[in-house]
Amino acid sequence: MKSNKPVILIGGGGHAAGLAEILLQQDRKILAVVAPELSKSLQSLGSFEHYTSDDDVLRFGNDEVELVNAIGAMPYQVLRKAIFTRFKEQGYQFATIVAHSAIVSPNVLLGEGVQVMHNAVICIGSAVKENTIINTSASIDHDCSIGANCHIAPGVTMSGQVNIEDGVHLATGANIINNVTVGKNTIVSVGASVTTDLPDEALVFAARVAIKEQGKL
Amino acid sequence: MKSNKPVILIGGGGHAAGLAEILLQQDRKILAVVAPELSKSLQSLGSFEHYTSDDDVLRFGNDEVELVNAIGAMPYQVLRKAIFTRFKEQGYQFATIVAHSAIVSPNVLLGEGVQVMHNAVICIGSAVKENTIINTSASIDHDCSIGANCHIAPGVTMSGQVNIEDGVHLATGANIINNVTVGKNTIVSVGASVTTDLPDEALVFAARVAIKEQGKL
Amino acid sequence: MKSNKPVILIGGGGHAAGLAEILLQQDRKILAVVAPELSKSLQSLGSFEHYTSDDDVLRFGNDEVELVNAIGAMPYQVLRKAIFTRFKEQGYQFATIVAHSAIVSPNVLLGEGVQVMHNAVICIGSAVKENTIINTSASIDHDCSIGANCHIAPGVTMSGQVNIEDGVHLATGANIINNVTVGKNTIVSVGASVTTDLPDEALVFAARVAIKEQGKL
Repeated sequence: MKSNKPVILIGGGGHAAGLAEILLQQDRKILAVVAPELSKSLQSLGSFEHYTSDDDVLRFGNDEVELVNAIGAMPYQVLRKAIFTRFKEQGYQFATIVAHSAIVSPNVLLGEGVQVMHNAVICIGSAVKENTIINTSASIDHDCSIGANCHIAPGVTMSGQVNIEDGVHLATGANIINNVTVGKNTIVSVGASVTTDLPDEALVFAARVAIKEQGKL
Repeated sequence: MKSNKPVILIGGGGHAAGLAEILLQQDRKILAVVAPELSKSLQSLGSFEHYTSDDDVLRFGNDEVELVNAIGAMPYQVLRKAIFTRFKEQGYQFATIVAHSAIVSPNVLLGEGVQVMHNAVICIGSAVKENTIINTSASIDHDCSIGANCHIAPGVTMSGQVNIEDGVHLATGANIINNVTVGKNTIVSVGASVTTDLPDEALVFAARVAIKEQGKL
Repeated sequence: MKSNKPVILIGGGGHAAGLAEILLQQDRKILAVVAPELSKSLQSLGSFEHYTSDDDVLRFGNDEVELVNAIGAMPYQVLRKAIFTRFKEQGYQFATIVAHSAIVSPNVLLGEGVQVMHNAVICIGSAVKENTIINTSASIDHDCSIGANCHIAPGVTMSGQVNIEDGVHLATGANIINNVTVGKNTIVSVGASVTTDLPDEALVFAARVAIKEQGKL
C-alpha cells in the first residue's frame, strides 16, 4: 500500500522543510520542489531541483511521482485545497506521510495526502480524510472522525468520538471534549476549549489574555 | 511482578477498544468481554467471547484471570469505581496497563488497575493510586501524587509536585502548576488552568469561548 | 561533540532528580551533587557525594567535569542564571542534556547547558540558546528561536517561527501561535494563549477559572 515513488514538493516554507526532513528520514527521494522560494530550513536539507511555477509539476508523469502538498495551513487560505484539487483532476497521487515519532493505531484510516507530524497521536477507530494535516504533538483519541482539508494545529487535544467536518481549522492548543461535532469550515482559535457542538462556518474565540508591565501588578 | 494471566474486559466502548489494542500488542490474551454491547472499534480487533452481565465475570476463577476495568471515565459517573470495588471484594486482581508509547519513569509507583494510555508521561518520584486513568498524551511531571479513581483526561499537563486527591476528574487539556493540591472528587473543566489549591467537591470552570458566524466579526 | 565527562549537579530538588535519571540512563557518571539538601526522588537514584556550598564546585577541575544546572526554573528567580554566569566565568562547561524520549530534529541548534526533558519536541530549523529548559512534553515547531535563560514549562506548545527572547518564562500549557515575538523577561501565565507580539518585561495572564462547590451550580 505504501508507495516508494519519488516525490515532488509543492511549497517551500517551514511546513515543507518539516515534511522534507521526515521524507528523507524515510528514504524517500525528493525529485524537485515547486515554490516561489525555498526557506533556509529546507535548503539546509540538501540541494533540491527547484521550479517556481505550479505548472512545472506537469514536467513529471502522474504515474511516476507522488506529490506532497507542502503548503502550510492558515485560516482563510484556500491554496492548499486548490493545489490538491487541481492535481487530483490531473491524475496525480498525493503521498500520505506519517512521521516516525507519530503514534498511529493500526486501526486508523488515513486518507490520501494526510500528513501526520512529529509526536502526533491518532487512536483506534479514528479516520482522517484527504489533504488534512495532523500537526506536531496533536492528540486525537479513539473513534474520532476528521474531515478533508482540515488543519489540526500543533498541540490540539481531542477526546474520543469527536466529529470534525471538512475544512475546519483548530488552532494551536485547542481542546475538544468527547462526542462533540465541529461544523465545516469552522475556525477554533488558539487554546479554545470546545465543550459543545459548533455550527458550520463559525469563528470560536477563547478568552483574551491580559497584559501588564512587570512591577505594576 | 508483571502478570501474563489472560484478562477479562469489563466494558465494551471506545476506552475498552483502546485498552484491548494495547493488551493485544503486548501479547495478553483477552478471554472475554463483559458489556451490554461491543463497539465497532472493539469488534475490529477480533472476535471476543461476549457476556452481557457483570455477574458473568464470576464464570472465571479469581486466581486464573486478571480483570480490566474498561469503562470510560466521565464526571459524576460512579460505575468505574463500583466495578473496581465489587470485584476486589470478590478476590479479583485488576491488570495495571501501560501503553508501549507511554513514557513512565522506572521510579514511579503505579497502583493496581492503573491505565496509562498512549504517549502519556509520568516522571520520576510520582505515584498513581488504584483504578486511575492517565489518558492519552497526559503529562505528569516529577513528584506528583495522584489519588485513586481519578481520570486524568487526554492532554492534561501537570508541573511538578502536584497533589491530586481521590476521585478527581481533570478534563481534556487542563493545566496544573506545581505544588498545587486538588481536593477529592473535584472536577476541573476542559482547558482550565489551575494555579491555586482547590477544595474537595469543587467544580472548576474555564472561561467560556465566544462563537461568532464568519463574516460577522 | 557530545561529552562523556562526569558531571556535577548544582541543585538537589525535583528538577535535579529528573535530570539525574536521564543522565544515568545515558551512562553519564554523577560525581557529586551540590545543594542544601537532596530530594527524596534524587536520593532514590543512588548515593551521591553531597556538598552543600556552591564553592564546593571548585573542588573539581574545570576541564575534568561538566556542570549541570539542576536548579528548577521559577518566575522571578535569578539563581539559575547566576549559577550559569558564575561558573562560566570560572571556565566550566555546562552539559547539554536531551532525554532519550525527546524528539529533536538533527537540524536544530542547542546552546550550552540546554535541557530538553521527556517527550519534548523541537522541529527543524529551531534554535535554543544557553541555559534554557525545554520542559516535559513541550512542543516547539519549525524555525522557532528561543533565547537564553528561558523556561519553556511542561506542555507549552509553539507553532512555527515563534521568537522567544532571553529570560522568558512560558508557564505550564501556554500556547503561542506562529510568527509571534515574546519580548525579553516576559512571563506568560499558565494556559495563556498568545496571539500577538508581547513587549519586554510583560506579565501575561490568562482568564481566571471560576470555582463552585458541587451541587450548587
